[in-house]
Amino acid sequence: MRVALYAGTFDPITNGHLDLIERGARLVDRLIIAILRNDSKQPLFTVEERMEMLSEVVGRFPNVEVDCFNGLLVDYADRIGARVLIRGLRAVQDFEYEFQMTMMNRHLRPQVETIFMMTGESHFYTSSRLVKEVASLGGNVSGLIPDNVVPLLIARAAT
Amino acid sequence: MRVALYAGTFDPITNGHLDLIERGARLVDRLIIAILRNDSKQPLFTVEERMEMLSEVVGRFPNVEVDCFNGLLVDYADRIGARVLIRGLRAVQDFEYEFQMTMMNRHLRPQVETIFMMTGESHFYTSSRLVKEVASLGGNVSGLIPDNVVPLLIARAAT
Amino acid sequence: MRVALYAGTFDPITNGHLDLIERGARLVDRLIIAILRNDSKQPLFTVEERMEMLSEVVGRFPNVEVDCFNGLLVDYADRIGARVLIRGLRAVQDFEYEFQMTMMNRHLRPQVETIFMMTGESHFYTSSRLVKEVASLGGNVSGLIPDNVVPLLIARAAT
Amino acid sequence: MRVALYAGTFDPITNGHLDLIERGARLVDRLIIAILRNDSKQPLFTVEERMEMLSEVVGRFPNVEVDCFNGLLVDYADRIGARVLIRGLRAVQDFEYEFQMTMMNRHLRPQVETIFMMTGESHFYTSSRLVKEVASLGGNVSGLIPDNVVPLLIARAAT
Amino acid sequence: MRVALYAGTFDPITNGHLDLIERGARLVDRLIIAILRNDSKQPLFTVEERMEMLSEVVGRFPNVEVDCFNGLLVDYADRIGARVLIRGLRAVQDFEYEFQMTMMNRHLRPQVETIFMMTGESHFYTSSRLVKEVASLGGNVSGLIPDNVVPLLIARAAT
Amino acid sequence: MRVALYAGTFDPITNGHLDLIERGARLVDRLIIAILRNDSKQPLFTVEERMEMLSEVVGRFPNVEVDCFNGLLVDYADRIGARVLIRGLRAVQDFEYEFQMTMMNRHLRPQVETIFMMTGESHFYTSSRLVKEVASLGGNVSGLIPDNVVPLLIARAAT
Repeated sequence: MRVALYAGTFDPITNGHLDLIERGARLVDRLIIAILRNDSKQPLFTVEERMEMLSEVVGRFPNVEVDCFNGLLVDYADRIGARVLIRGLRAVQDFEYEFQMTMMNRHLRPQVETIFMMTGESHFYTSSRLVKEVASLGGNVSGLIPDNVVPLLIARAAT
Repeated sequence: MRVALYAGTFDPITNGHLDLIERGARLVDRLIIAILRNDSKQPLFTVEERMEMLSEVVGRFPNVEVDCFNGLLVDYADRIGARVLIRGLRAVQDFEYEFQMTMMNRHLRPQVETIFMMTGESHFYTSSRLVKEVASLGGNVSGLIPDNVVPLLIARAAT
Repeated sequence: MRVALYAGTFDPITNGHLDLIERGARLVDRLIIAILRNDSKQPLFTVEERMEMLSEVVGRFPNVEVDCFNGLLVDYADRIGARVLIRGLRAVQDFEYEFQMTMMNRHLRPQVETIFMMTGESHFYTSSRLVKEVASLGGNVSGLIPDNVVPLLIARAAT
Repeated sequence: MRVALYAGTFDPITNGHLDLIERGARLVDRLIIAILRNDSKQPLFTVEERMEMLSEVVGRFPNVEVDCFNGLLVDYADRIGARVLIRGLRAVQDFEYEFQMTMMNRHLRPQVETIFMMTGESHFYTSSRLVKEVASLGGNVSGLIPDNVVPLLIARAAT
Repeated sequence: MRVALYAGTFDPITNGHLDLIERGARLVDRLIIAILRNDSKQPLFTVEERMEMLSEVVGRFPNVEVDCFNGLLVDYADRIGARVLIRGLRAVQDFEYEFQMTMMNRHLRPQVETIFMMTGESHFYTSSRLVKEVASLGGNVSGLIPDNVVPLLIARAAT
Repeated sequence: MRVALYAGTFDPITNGHLDLIERGARLVDRLIIAILRNDSKQPLFTVEERMEMLSEVVGRFPNVEVDCFNGLLVDYADRIGARVLIRGLRAVQDFEYEFQMTMMNRHLRPQVETIFMMTGESHFYTSSRLVKEVASLGGNVSGLIPDNVVPLLIARAAT
């Protein structure tokens, strides 16, 4: 397991993502955190802003890099030589979607394997979507997202 | 459990909501039914129309009041002195979402407790979304929503 | 079980749909495949294009016909004399939604019965939505949808 | 769909089973209700007692017969010329088990198809196991099982 | 909500149970913790031992009492004047079972209402069964069960 | 990820287990397949028989070894220097149990990480329990378990 890939929207990165990155980084030689460029969802932060936030947060892990990509995830994995996709699991709804994606990714590229890891239990309710909603309603998001992201999210959510 | 809060969109109120209100009203001293004002969903009825429908329907319960609010649910609960949030449970998908919201609300305001209640089995398939869909396709919605709401929904769905 | 109805969006038909049509056609005298006309979703193919694709694919089943309809599914079932609705089951999320729809359809028209069938396991991850996403990202969709639909989807997804 | 098979333990038959038998009998020419003889579970009623109870209850359906069998369900289906297995669906746990059994039965005998039907919502909580538990604790089981089975269950549960 | 009932096996009480007792005690005037006497499961501790453990643990809550009962839960609730059953929710499997029990209890005694509460996230994996398994394999159970129960479980699990 | 551990009962090993072993062996330097000795379940094959079957089947993977252990899984992992537990995921019921076990194992030994992998879709319905049941009823188990295990299971199931 030389190179692994953890892809997502990270709009913005949460402490749940960070927990998973830390767990994943211990298992592999290189871990690439990658943002999908051509995502249909309307993000709050640009790809560049998200890459900057991610880079700042993961700077302390020597074997973690941040990137972004276009097109199919498994094609990108192939280009960068990643044979393992890391995915976080939280709940039943997650699982069903992940199950379908894993099967499809295997169909498209059988040599790329998907492994699932669980975040710590204090992150079970932390999702980018919910954190943005809380911020937009004036709630306190400290402890849910990395400290350096808090002022950025508060500023953006208010607009 | 002096004051409890049952918040939702109620667009429109269904007999499933009403079943839960009746069950909840028996358990507490005061039950506040509250509509979120700044909901991102595009409602069929205005907040004022929904408050009027709700008020008419719950008029027979002496300890039930209707209100609306802006901002975070737990902040509103705090303002009105409600220590209990009542939520309805129907199915697995409900549960996963409710689980995440309950954890987040506890994180934001630990002193507010969430309790879940089940509607009667004849309301398991009744949701505002599905009732609106049936009405818009010309189906019969009697028995799914309160009698006074039926002509309002038929008139609105036809437009 | 003279006449059965298998309704859906079929945007486009997948090999999972086709698997279910083949299983269903063995159980009944006549199987009607029907596309809902007034669907709120923004389809990739027009109703007419989808009917043409479906007709070509199911031509080999002598007791299968293709149609489209407006309004409530159970009203349409009634008009064409279908007493059985066939639905495919894949996963937990499917099941919850299907459960709610089945209950509602029974409420609206008790004499119409819903039966569920499972696709073959090689189709568990095939959905129209996911196939469209793969095609739009340049992935290979052969084997996921009928051969005659492959060039149509590739052409449309590229636009 | 000439001949269908609805197999189970029926220890004892509940109104949920009866609801499904009634729905199934409307869809097929002949419906065989079959009890597995070599069940590892320790039943409350003997196979003969259960067959007698079932026969009495389904006597009003002209196209329903009662039988029992040894060995694999799909082998028995083959012997009696049944091409369809009918199964009831209630909840998520049911579904997962049924999913696994359906796949296994297809592996063992691909020409036998499984269809799933939902009981009426008033039977969602009725299972033989739960009804026996209620009876053994002195609870009222009227309305949960057929009238002729009530005294038999009360007598047996008391021993 | 004068009197509520939280029934279970409590073999032994865990910190998850205790978390729920604390949450429940804040909502009601009197909370009765009750152990089912005629449980079919083979317990590790006698009813008397479990009552003693529970009594010691809940001594600090002035409105919580410990009791045991025979027969149907809803009959016992009726005898002691409890109109509310409190149940803990952890996961999907819990929910399905709880759903069935709630419907059955409503059928048997409609005036008794069931409410569900979630334990804190640090107790999601704590069940009496799993704690006993860990103890029997020599694992550390501190932090999973109340401090006074730890030596009792270690002594009993070793036998 | 130098050393990983895949523990189970393997009574007997199925092609689903084998599929997971093959996937796991590609990801790590050494993969230990381990049978729990003090399992409360009554196995069909002795630990020694199961170790022999496993050894024969995994002989072709140079980095896979077979072992057995007593006590807690995480203690055993610690003794052999395994920092990763590999678990297979099939369905919702699996997931809930695995979730609880993973949390408990983290509580007991935070430095041991659990990763989940999915078997191929042709193994979704293959479990040791179901395969034993099919064999005991005279069904064909070829293709469900390794070829060398087929005659052993048939001989044992007949007794």
